[in-house]
Amino acid sequence: MKALRYEQGRLHVADLDLPSARDEALVRVTRSGICNTDLEIVRGYAGFQGTLGHEFVGVVERADDAQLLGRRVVGEINAGCGRCLLCRAGDPRHCPRRTVLGIVGRDGAHAEFLQLPAVNLLPVPDEVPDERAVFTEPLAAACGILERTQIDEDTRVVVIGDGKLGLLCAQAIKALTRADVTLVGKHRNKLDIARRRDIETMLVEQISDAAARTFDVVVEASGAAAGFTLALNLVRPRGTLVLKSTFHGATTLDAARIVVDEISIVGSRCGRFQPALELLRRNAVDVDSLISEEHALTDGVRALARARADGVIKVLLRP
Amino acid sequence: MKALRYEQGRLHVADLDLPSARDEALVRVTRSGICNTDLEIVRGYAGFQGTLGHEFVGVVERADDAQLLGRRVVGEINAGCGRCLLCRAGDPRHCPRRTVLGIVGRDGAHAEFLQLPAVNLLPVPDEVPDERAVFTEPLAAACGILERTQIDEDTRVVVIGDGKLGLLCAQAIKALTRADVTLVGKHRNKLDIARRRDIETMLVEQISDAAARTFDVVVEASGAAAGFTLALNLVRPRGTLVLKSTFHGATTLDAARIVVDEISIVGSRCGRFQPALELLRRNAVDVDSLISEEHALTDGVRALARARADGVIKVLLRP
Repeated sequence: MKALRYEQGRLHVADLDLPSARDEALVRVTRSGICNTDLEIVRGYAGFQGTLGHEFVGVVERADDAQLLGRRVVGEINAGCGRCLLCRAGDPRHCPRRTVLGIVGRDGAHAEFLQLPAVNLLPVPDEVPDERAVFTEPLAAACGILERTQIDEDTRVVVIGDGKLGLLCAQAIKALTRADVTLVGKHRNKLDIARRRDIETMLVEQISDAAARTFDVVVEASGAAAGFTLALNLVRPRGTLVLKSTFHGATTLDAARIVVDEISIVGSRCGRFQPALELLRRNAVDVDSLISEEHALTDGVRALARARADGVIKVLLRP
Repeated sequence: MKALRYEQGRLHVADLDLPSARDEALVRVTRSGICNTDLEIVRGYAGFQGTLGHEFVGVVERADDAQLLGRRVVGEINAGCGRCLLCRAGDPRHCPRRTVLGIVGRDGAHAEFLQLPAVNLLPVPDEVPDERAVFTEPLAAACGILERTQIDEDTRVVVIGDGKLGLLCAQAIKALTRADVTLVGKHRNKLDIARRRDIETMLVEQISDAAARTFDVVVEASGAAAGFTLALNLVRPRGTLVLKSTFHGATTLDAARIVVDEISIVGSRCGRFQPALELLRRNAVDVDSLISEEHALTDGVRALARARADGVIKVLLRP
């Protein structure tokens, strides 16, 4: 099968044998999505080598569970050891021995086939076509913010970054909480996607001094050190700054500001899939407008380059 | 009156007129305590100029409220505008127009007299002598950790730093929650103070790799960048790192660690005085062992130098 791989500093489409672990389900991928984490891995993040990709939808081709065979599925990307307290409590996302699809110790989704434990797979409702279902994983990550901080309709929220992650975060928070959500970015056309879903939008250069220290919750989804600085500037005393994306390089921590204003900085990674699937089923989030391009898997190297280009939001791959 | 002042880069004992604001109470200081914040201010922190000091006990010499006259008191150090939402809700600690005793826009406690709004003053129970009552403010700051994160008897807590702040934090958390508390430091004799109060203690060099990522709550009270690094190393996935002290200079933020392990970093500054006074009344916290030296206010310059010395914990001033 074909697979988009990063190994020994080289990104290429390779020919591989099919995955063969008999204790896992085999999924024929129908779409995969390129995430910024893929781009980071190609810059050396996490030291991962292997098949990239963790956003996918596909069809189960082999599984012990007959109920799953032939089903269209998406899949939670963390595969736990199954034995530790966290795994036994049903949440392998922080299992210390977990593998993570296309990120840690496990080949990923930019391939014709992938394997995952059957327990990780969730059937996709018929109303959700493949081009939307492929957004389940990043949308779940956006929903995961609500596991990490309380937001209700009286909360003033600002999301920083109008890339694919920021657009999903702003929409998910709005749809799930009806909070007062503002999205800050650099691209009028990207911000407009959020504006059509009742989200306030603001270009970075429009932020006035009066906005400083006024937001209850600030979500940093730009992945840039400047976004973190802006986030710290916007959060109110005793407010919460949600770190949703990692940075290129380290940023400095103004400990005095965090202590004096008693700010909380909260990391957020993966979320549960079910709330995301439900949002997609209800069409409560616009993901269609996020799709910039779709490429054949065999053009994966070029597709990754396109995903970096300014103005491009989500790039999908089709095996 | 005499006062220990920092102005135009110079620390000195000056002769001043008595404070004269008629809408505030006048307190004759009987003891004040030197805090690391005083030492930081002398290094330029917060840009403060004026009389240093915010830890004190004293006697009310002038007040509109006859009930307060002649009473032995301690005082909350944040004086709010009285009109904003926060002040009207009874908590001026984050009032944007607040002054702070000896830190922001208000002369402090290393003086023969100070003034504060009468509402800031709390009578000291007779059972609590001056040398203990002077610890109310830093002990309240330690208790304030429990306003910022949940700790119960099943929580594994580690406090980093065996200085005066760390010793108070470890004892306050232990006394208020019965949690499993460990204090990490560099001084066997300082750690022993905590050990006598049922707190586990550990020298920094004794920390094994097995301790990494095992603590639910880590309190950084060392004020050193190395302490912050150690704190991040010890906190478990989805755990909480409480920042209790500021650093000398900025430290770098490992955003990937915070996001991947979904860590919360929580700033904590001032606490309520009442729980601290109650701990002192019950003698539930050993503050006597923290007093290293007491100096006359007129020797304030030397006293501040002594407070920096290795092995010295709390230095008190007596006007």
